[in-house]
Amino acid sequence: MKRPGVWKMLMAAMCVALLSGLQAQDLPRQVSIILLGATGDLARKYLWQGLFHLYLEEVGKGHHFRFHGTALTSTEQGQEVIAKVLESLSCPGDMASGHCAELKAQFQQLSEYRRLKTPEDYLALSKDIEAQVEHEGLRETGRIFYLSVPPFAYVDIARNINSSCRPGPGAWLRVVLEKPFGHDLHSAQQLATELGSFFQEEEMYRVDHYLGKQVVAQILPFRDQNRAALDGLWNRHHVERVEIVMKETLDAEGRTSFYEEYGVIRDVLQNHLTEVLTLVAMELPVNVSSPESVLQHKLQAFQALRSLQRHSAVLGQYQAYSGQVRRELQKPDSFHSLTPTFAGILVHIDNLRWEGVPFILMSGKALDERVSYVRILFKNQAFCVQSEKHWVAAQSRCLPRQIIFYIGHGELGSPAVLVSRNLFQPALPSASWKEVEGRPGLHLFGLPLSDYYAYSPVREQDAYSLLISHIFHCRKDSFVTTENLLASWVFWTPLLDSLAHEVPRFYPGGAENGQLLDFEFSGGHLSFSQPLPEQLVPGPDSAPLPSDFQVLRAKYRESPLISAWPEELIARLAGDIEAAAVRAVRRFGKFHLALSGGSSPVALFQQLATGHYSFPWAHTHLWLVDERCVPLWDPESNFQGLQTHLLQHVRVPHYNVHPMPVHRRQRLCAEEDQGAQAYAEEISALVTNGSFDLVLLGMGTDGHTASLFPQSPAGLDGEQLVVLTTSPSSPHRRMSLSLPLINRARKVAVLVMGRMKREIAMLVSRVGRDPKKWPISGVLPDSGQLVWYMDYDAFLG
Amino acid sequence: MKRPGVWKMLMAAMCVALLSGLQAQDLPRQVSIILLGATGDLARKYLWQGLFHLYLEEVGKGHHFRFHGTALTSTEQGQEVIAKVLESLSCPGDMASGHCAELKAQFQQLSEYRRLKTPEDYLALSKDIEAQVEHEGLRETGRIFYLSVPPFAYVDIARNINSSCRPGPGAWLRVVLEKPFGHDLHSAQQLATELGSFFQEEEMYRVDHYLGKQVVAQILPFRDQNRAALDGLWNRHHVERVEIVMKETLDAEGRTSFYEEYGVIRDVLQNHLTEVLTLVAMELPVNVSSPESVLQHKLQAFQALRSLQRHSAVLGQYQAYSGQVRRELQKPDSFHSLTPTFAGILVHIDNLRWEGVPFILMSGKALDERVSYVRILFKNQAFCVQSEKHWVAAQSRCLPRQIIFYIGHGELGSPAVLVSRNLFQPALPSASWKEVEGRPGLHLFGLPLSDYYAYSPVREQDAYSLLISHIFHCRKDSFVTTENLLASWVFWTPLLDSLAHEVPRFYPGGAENGQLLDFEFSGGHLSFSQPLPEQLVPGPDSAPLPSDFQVLRAKYRESPLISAWPEELIARLAGDIEAAAVRAVRRFGKFHLALSGGSSPVALFQQLATGHYSFPWAHTHLWLVDERCVPLWDPESNFQGLQTHLLQHVRVPHYNVHPMPVHRRQRLCAEEDQGAQAYAEEISALVTNGSFDLVLLGMGTDGHTASLFPQSPAGLDGEQLVVLTTSPSSPHRRMSLSLPLINRARKVAVLVMGRMKREIAMLVSRVGRDPKKWPISGVLPDSGQLVWYMDYDAFLG
Repeated sequence: MKRPGVWKMLMAAMCVALLSGLQAQDLPRQVSIILLGATGDLARKYLWQGLFHLYLEEVGKGHHFRFHGTALTSTEQGQEVIAKVLESLSCPGDMASGHCAELKAQFQQLSEYRRLKTPEDYLALSKDIEAQVEHEGLRETGRIFYLSVPPFAYVDIARNINSSCRPGPGAWLRVVLEKPFGHDLHSAQQLATELGSFFQEEEMYRVDHYLGKQVVAQILPFRDQNRAALDGLWNRHHVERVEIVMKETLDAEGRTSFYEEYGVIRDVLQNHLTEVLTLVAMELPVNVSSPESVLQHKLQAFQALRSLQRHSAVLGQYQAYSGQVRRELQKPDSFHSLTPTFAGILVHIDNLRWEGVPFILMSGKALDERVSYVRILFKNQAFCVQSEKHWVAAQSRCLPRQIIFYIGHGELGSPAVLVSRNLFQPALPSASWKEVEGRPGLHLFGLPLSDYYAYSPVREQDAYSLLISHIFHCRKDSFVTTENLLASWVFWTPLLDSLAHEVPRFYPGGAENGQLLDFEFSGGHLSFSQPLPEQLVPGPDSAPLPSDFQVLRAKYRESPLISAWPEELIARLAGDIEAAAVRAVRRFGKFHLALSGGSSPVALFQQLATGHYSFPWAHTHLWLVDERCVPLWDPESNFQGLQTHLLQHVRVPHYNVHPMPVHRRQRLCAEEDQGAQAYAEEISALVTNGSFDLVLLGMGTDGHTASLFPQSPAGLDGEQLVVLTTSPSSPHRRMSLSLPLINRARKVAVLVMGRMKREIAMLVSRVGRDPKKWPISGVLPDSGQLVWYMDYDAFLG
Repeated sequence: MKRPGVWKMLMAAMCVALLSGLQAQDLPRQVSIILLGATGDLARKYLWQGLFHLYLEEVGKGHHFRFHGTALTSTEQGQEVIAKVLESLSCPGDMASGHCAELKAQFQQLSEYRRLKTPEDYLALSKDIEAQVEHEGLRETGRIFYLSVPPFAYVDIARNINSSCRPGPGAWLRVVLEKPFGHDLHSAQQLATELGSFFQEEEMYRVDHYLGKQVVAQILPFRDQNRAALDGLWNRHHVERVEIVMKETLDAEGRTSFYEEYGVIRDVLQNHLTEVLTLVAMELPVNVSSPESVLQHKLQAFQALRSLQRHSAVLGQYQAYSGQVRRELQKPDSFHSLTPTFAGILVHIDNLRWEGVPFILMSGKALDERVSYVRILFKNQAFCVQSEKHWVAAQSRCLPRQIIFYIGHGELGSPAVLVSRNLFQPALPSASWKEVEGRPGLHLFGLPLSDYYAYSPVREQDAYSLLISHIFHCRKDSFVTTENLLASWVFWTPLLDSLAHEVPRFYPGGAENGQLLDFEFSGGHLSFSQPLPEQLVPGPDSAPLPSDFQVLRAKYRESPLISAWPEELIARLAGDIEAAAVRAVRRFGKFHLALSGGSSPVALFQQLATGHYSFPWAHTHLWLVDERCVPLWDPESNFQGLQTHLLQHVRVPHYNVHPMPVHRRQRLCAEEDQGAQAYAEEISALVTNGSFDLVLLGMGTDGHTASLFPQSPAGLDGEQLVVLTTSPSSPHRRMSLSLPLINRARKVAVLVMGRMKREIAMLVSRVGRDPKKWPISGVLPDSGQLVWYMDYDAFLG
């Protein structure tokens, strides 16, 4: 029954029908809205008001409404609460009070409370709706279930709705869900699967209330209405950075039972700030009012996000937090929480539009001000000839140019869209946006308010009112689809995992934080700008720092051994390779470098890609030491790793790059395609005597190197330069330089890193030359030099 | 006799001997200094003082000196002038006046004036020196000829020195030359060749007095002494921009006869600012006090400069200039000069250290202030969490961080090195540099002076004094070598040529310039920030602008024709290719694009490389339409053009790039290597039905297309997909897609641009299908679409 394609078409048709007022039958239509958790905080504060707002907007436009508030509490208690809530509803400021009272009375009339707990309750509700509709001579158009309940209740409720409370054929069902939607990718997937077994994707509306904030909802329309001005600006050539920020002054007191489980990344960044990020970064659809195409472009934006690393984040925790947790959750005095209440994240987007532009996401509790905004700061690409004394603020191209989506609060105190006057005058829908009045003395982001074109909504509207209206109007782009949600968790979960045991930096809270939380980015890494104040540094008996050690120089298997902490070791190896390259290019005009695949070299590739400005890449030939028999574009391919981490960042001429021909005539490593022979010929043609200037090897836990494996004779001796071999692990087929060819190199570097290598490193240090058993032991250049690079983990044991 | 290698070694040995005080013979040594043009402006203002300064520095250190002022004036007149000059010499402020008077008297004693005009005069001078040396029992160590004369006099003087005034064996000769050193590459080469026929390279000292400015001379030592702090900062990851600026308030009045011939680029940018540029940009030699290695690194910096385009510059001329020229050079009222008195230039450096960092060179007369400086502005890579109200200037990473080499004048009024306090505290030689005293209220580059570590020289020294000392001490790195000079002209001459007829923007001069001269850069182009004020726009009868035209849509050879001005045409074609790519990738998952070489596509490649953020490069296969039988790295190779202008800038996976195999087994297009067959196989394997999604062709003036030539049957019909052909022009051997293969494409675009194509375009419009005579006429896709893209030059005639 779940055929999304057909369903999607059907839904699209339904939405059109709804909006255009067409209908098959002639009976007046009714929509039922069931608010679950109707007596809860969120419902009382926002949702009932949002429903009333929807009623005010839609009354008389062709739909009848019924509102059913439900909860688990008894009917009597519930009715009492609801009566109070309904009494306190307010109309927009510009509505005459008599008219308001009349509509409010109507709304109260159409609203009821009922307890909704058992499957029978659901069935009864469904029957009641059907009876009422029939009684009043209406046709049921659809039902909205708004689940304002904790997520653990979702599945039961979903089952009940699906089995006992779906509307009849021809009417739609919409189920609205509130976050959190899982705790990580796994739990989100699980929840999505469960909900997916009850509802179609098209039936679910996941609320991220940030998408209902007026300014956030305006981001895409703004980009659309100002296409002409933004077309040339909205890219890496012009944008210096994007900041997506939500600062709070409140702390987590009273909510630690929730907060302790989630922390700031799950609470704010994974959802609100990520949604905003996609709105800013996505390619702008031709039609921004097509929800389908907005959602599709959002997903594309997710695909372009560069994976987060542990160093993409800085974390903080306000000092009082652990105490609050101990108090509220009855933890012992010895308990210290690692939950971050502050996070700064550096996001990079790997597409041609945004490559290299830092997107900074930041949120925290107990900070010095409450404010949230998106700031797009443009590069200063002007040179102002006149002395700066003469600069005219609103005209000078040398003063900051920025666009700010001021989501709310802060010194401005209201939502607004700000555009520097030296940028362009933005178009905004004049009926709903008005110019902000001047506020002398107010500075925002380095400039007085008067330096901006500033617009704020004519009428401030609450996020939930807007979202409820969007649910009714089928505006799915204001909600988080399953694909969207999972894409976000795919993005965040690895970071959350890698930060699980990270100790956050403690901060006092409020203005006293000073510069303690300021952070910096460089080469994709984030770090706090200030070193940790001394009193917080761990004592002398704590773990040693890399800087406490010198690079060790010793012997291993009678060849030079260089040993250090990983970062230093990689830096050293990269430096040695560069030196060899410079020497070779000076002497021979070119440098032949053969590289291994695997994980250890990745750090090396990154090091070579980001530093080493004098590396003679234009004269360097890159060869592969070995390759897996997979297409070159397979993620498992060694070449693919080389391409991603090195080739994309440096300028090696195309014809100097020599991938192994494992894929010829659409076949993988077929003997008859003679790939190994072809590679050998290529080497013979270009590399004098087949002597590579440098060969980089690794060492496997079984003592293999290159793709030469123990107990497998291919390539260990003989005349062949390149051989096909068989690996004990998948993919089994490999191509590899042979040991005799490796040993012709001028220099061979063996890189061995990580605790996993400790045992084999110990073992190999003792064995003689026995390549059949330990292929690595056969590495000994005929007349070149062998150097071992081992990190302390592998070497010191 | 000119064996530079040997000479270099000899010179190096001499300099060492000079500096270390070693000598072969035991006689006391004498150096003669001959100042030609000794009565001229420069000599009277700076050079005599510089010689005196040298004398003060060196007296008693082992050398005897004689100073010969010479000119063409009579002995009597000359003596009179020189006597006055010598009388006005001053000692350093800290020297006792009695001591000063004594040394001045000595110096006067050792100085003489003589007329130096004929070869005999030179011979006489030489004899006199020899006689005097012998008489006084000295040994002649060397002679310095300082030519403070107009360049047209160089060659005669050089001939005379070489033939009649060289010192004897064992003594050195140094000839000092003042700019201008030519007017463009050709004249500079000519002058260099002429001088080279008289002097060794090592004997010539070309003065650029900017290299004698204390702050300029400090740039390399500063970089050296602050290596630790700068190592991580001095690169594209951290530097936002570099500004190299010399602003003058004076105009050219009284000097227009010189200025009219040179203009601001030749007068200031080609020499002073370029020298400074190389000092900032060059890789730092290990030993900055080795002149050889400094000079070598400078040359490397020149090699990395990206060629300047017409759009790399903005030009201005102060409004009074043409009037001054008319008055001073007796020009008619109708005369209007195009000589620029203001220029802003955007320089890019194509190496990994500086790629993408704008270097802005700017100089002008009649501006609002006199100042010169180098400003290195660092990127703001910090995020400051606290509200900006709380930022502490000297600590906040969010406030500007910069290093300024303040060469002189300006509001500070003295040379200085400034480093933002939020950057690092610089090391400077404490004996010669002192901290600048506080100056409340003084703002420099957006910050109060107190926000900088600021150092200025303990004793301000005039550039010429410093340079004369460096000549004596053999510090060749303070001078412009021939290679260096020519490299600079190679860089500047094409720009000067392309700007020869450019009308500069007129500016009123002084503070009234307002923002008229402010300029902006983007995508390598410079332009004034403000549009030209209306009153200066040419009238309605002036040449039409590209925007005055619409893209034409018509038919050509019964296929659609798109015609426009070049820029618009290229933008249109790029857009169409992107649209085709997006469509193909959506339908088939990949896009097969076959590209031609030549010059027209270069603009297209650049357009595709810098815009088109949504182009699905990762799924695009790039094929060559044709190739010359040269190695792929040959500048003539079509592939090389594709690599330089497109591949380096976008991310096409290595294995999706398909160069033609014209170079196999170290041979070019040998039939037996079956390159054409191999390419055909590759196409058959990857491109469904051999139907490229888009083939881009050009059209030669002989009607050829791809590498299919008239009267040459290969590839015009038959079964072969790829063929070897023969071109009438060199290199003759080519590889090409065949006409039948081209005609299998889904879309063929023919790009025809430029006046040169007008005739053939006319002709081809009339001929039938006759590929043997006009290969282009055979292009007609079997079932695909053919579209012609012609610019107005080619089409409108």
